[in-house]
Amino acid sequence: MTKAHRTAGILSIGDELTLGQSLDTNSHWLAQRLLDIGIKPIEHVTVPDDLDAHVRVLQRLAATCDLVISTGGLGPTADDLTRAALARASDDELIEDPVAVAQIERWFAKSGRALNAINRVQALRPSRGECLENEHGTAPGLWGRVGEVELYCLPGPPREMKPIFEKLVRPRLRPMNDRLVRTLVLPTIGLGESDVALKLGELMRRDRAVMVGTTASKGVVSVRLRYEGDPAHADAQVRDAEAQVRERLGPIIFKHGEVSLAAELLGLLREQGLTLATVESCTGGLLGGLLTDVPGSSAVYTGGWVTYSNAMKQSLVGVDASILSPSGPGAVSAACAAAMARGGLARSGASLCVSITGIAGPDGGSEAKPVGTVWIAFGHSSDAAVEARRFVLAGDRANVREWACVAALAMIRQRAIGDEAPKLLREQERVTIQR
Amino acid sequence: MTKAHRTAGILSIGDELTLGQSLDTNSHWLAQRLLDIGIKPIEHVTVPDDLDAHVRVLQRLAATCDLVISTGGLGPTADDLTRAALARASDDELIEDPVAVAQIERWFAKSGRALNAINRVQALRPSRGECLENEHGTAPGLWGRVGEVELYCLPGPPREMKPIFEKLVRPRLRPMNDRLVRTLVLPTIGLGESDVALKLGELMRRDRAVMVGTTASKGVVSVRLRYEGDPAHADAQVRDAEAQVRERLGPIIFKHGEVSLAAELLGLLREQGLTLATVESCTGGLLGGLLTDVPGSSAVYTGGWVTYSNAMKQSLVGVDASILSPSGPGAVSAACAAAMARGGLARSGASLCVSITGIAGPDGGSEAKPVGTVWIAFGHSSDAAVEARRFVLAGDRANVREWACVAALAMIRQRAIGDEAPKLLREQERVTIQR
Repeated sequence: MTKAHRTAGILSIGDELTLGQSLDTNSHWLAQRLLDIGIKPIEHVTVPDDLDAHVRVLQRLAATCDLVISTGGLGPTADDLTRAALARASDDELIEDPVAVAQIERWFAKSGRALNAINRVQALRPSRGECLENEHGTAPGLWGRVGEVELYCLPGPPREMKPIFEKLVRPRLRPMNDRLVRTLVLPTIGLGESDVALKLGELMRRDRAVMVGTTASKGVVSVRLRYEGDPAHADAQVRDAEAQVRERLGPIIFKHGEVSLAAELLGLLREQGLTLATVESCTGGLLGGLLTDVPGSSAVYTGGWVTYSNAMKQSLVGVDASILSPSGPGAVSAACAAAMARGGLARSGASLCVSITGIAGPDGGSEAKPVGTVWIAFGHSSDAAVEARRFVLAGDRANVREWACVAALAMIRQRAIGDEAPKLLREQERVTIQR
Repeated sequence: MTKAHRTAGILSIGDELTLGQSLDTNSHWLAQRLLDIGIKPIEHVTVPDDLDAHVRVLQRLAATCDLVISTGGLGPTADDLTRAALARASDDELIEDPVAVAQIERWFAKSGRALNAINRVQALRPSRGECLENEHGTAPGLWGRVGEVELYCLPGPPREMKPIFEKLVRPRLRPMNDRLVRTLVLPTIGLGESDVALKLGELMRRDRAVMVGTTASKGVVSVRLRYEGDPAHADAQVRDAEAQVRERLGPIIFKHGEVSLAAELLGLLREQGLTLATVESCTGGLLGGLLTDVPGSSAVYTGGWVTYSNAMKQSLVGVDASILSPSGPGAVSAACAAAMARGGLARSGASLCVSITGIAGPDGGSEAKPVGTVWIAFGHSSDAAVEARRFVLAGDRANVREWACVAALAMIRQRAIGDEAPKLLREQERVTIQR
């Protein structure tokens, strides 16, 4: 019981995961939480609702990791096999836990229902294990051991899994104190991955105390720092490496700590006493969704318009019919984007307004305006002009839409930090249009 | 070379994945594609950028699966070890592939750059392997073998990985012809998971030809059907099981085939010649984002408003100041939701308008209106009244917002299919307000 938890294996269970019917987000979340407290996840595995496979992977992970955390397979139905797998892997038998029965009964009573036979099996646990109370559902978590290695089995639904982890698992974990892993992510916007790597140069050598790597997604290249070793040197080493990365990359690094680009931007604008409105066409509300994902965003973000149809572009934000007419530049043009931003500025009373109009695909592209063509315009209520930039973004419909939102946030940020506004990745053209 | 690919292992590589800095979506996508053609993914694994761990897992998967597909680790930098791992696992050496060098040179030439030494390592491959051309980036995929088992190593960025899989991997795969896996997902809205299970009854027994399971997320309980066996009987068996599930669950099943709730709803509305507008507060544009995620949504969805601030609720859609005043019912009320829907109907010219206003958290809740309280109103231009429903949704800010969008879509769908509109999950109250 006294061995420290240096490494962890994370297991997800379910046919819907192995067969690709659902996306596993639990392992990602658990990995973050474990690393936060100094336990290093060294493998994630996903297996089907198959008792033999489940037992084998529990035993294999117990042989290679100091700790195993699983999610899924604790539901009430016949395809939920975690209880049986834990019992078999730990050579134990299942018994009914009277405390768990009472907890599940209380859960049903809250909505005026009686505990049924189907849900009652959720109170089973290995005789030498424990149930972990679930305050947000009917499936208690389980604790048990395979040999010396502890296993925590949590329910699959994230809103049940997360509170059990925070309240009942995390306090029982035993991170190493003589060695830790510390990571830092510095996301950048504006350069491609190999250009970022060229600027980082020898900082990316694998033999350095702080390892530096990069990953790229939707116009954002994230620089990842990782230190592993003596806790006494961790802070100084990571701080030193961060300073070197910042010196080489400058203001293309946008993120401070654990905040999103939207959150950082909202913070900057709040400090400057600015408010922001949005006018979205091809992104259809996604940009507003990203901004309002940030708690407290209402201090800066006033709201805006989803002018998806041409009629709405005219009636809601006053885009001139001549722009949208067959002989005009059309809905995906600098003129239309600028008119949307101007109209949003005038009608919202916000200090800033950004607009997005483009062709997200899969249809609607042409030789002159291929799928991925997006115009983003941005204006300040005190400026005489609106700036519009054309991007040709890559990927499928979802990728183009998400990348367009990132590019819009990056444009506003360049202005907010007083950057010289270098060309963003995939930016093709920039025009200034008088208001 | 002639052994069929009955089962597959899917491997993701990268510290950013094991440590929880990035979410792996590639494995999910690949699992779907493999299952589509009758190859059954039996395990997903994620390992760090560690050569030994990488080689070990390649060898282990090659011993248990008929096919291994990996993503990641093919970038240009020193932490990209897939080339070396494949060479070592297959007891081979790395050589430079002249065709791959030329392809990477062409990629750089497109943006006026010359191939640099950093990217040149991406043209390395095991001497008995092959490079797979990447038309969307600098990292070629790799093909190789460990023993008799074929490995395909694809780059991590989805927009590079997916085209290589579709164009160069899928045509080379050899699914079994004597046995297949067929799955069907029937998502439902309105009942909890155990209520759905009670209605399904013995259809969920594990010994049936078509296995039936359930999973729950944000108000949607998905019924999953899976058949595995003789291809000659697959269609009839799955059709028969689907009919039985539909008979027991009726119109709470909302999805037909591979479409989202938003896509199904837009299809229903298009058939009926209806158009839809949105007025969003706490969801901030997410609902518009879901609707416009569907290609061709512009035939039905006109757009709408993000009335995030109270001022925007008044100025954009005409919510009366008395509703929002300290002595009024407030922004999260039936009156406000109804006024938003009415205002959106009048100003959009759409036949339908739905509005959402609520408290997504983490702050802003009270005893009378706890976090998760959401009012959703819905009106039809030909109706004299607007209907508003109060929900108390569970989970964190993101969960409440996504669930609110699902509930809004479900409300419109009940109307579109002429359902009697039974209570939705977590619905607490329903009022009708004259326009």
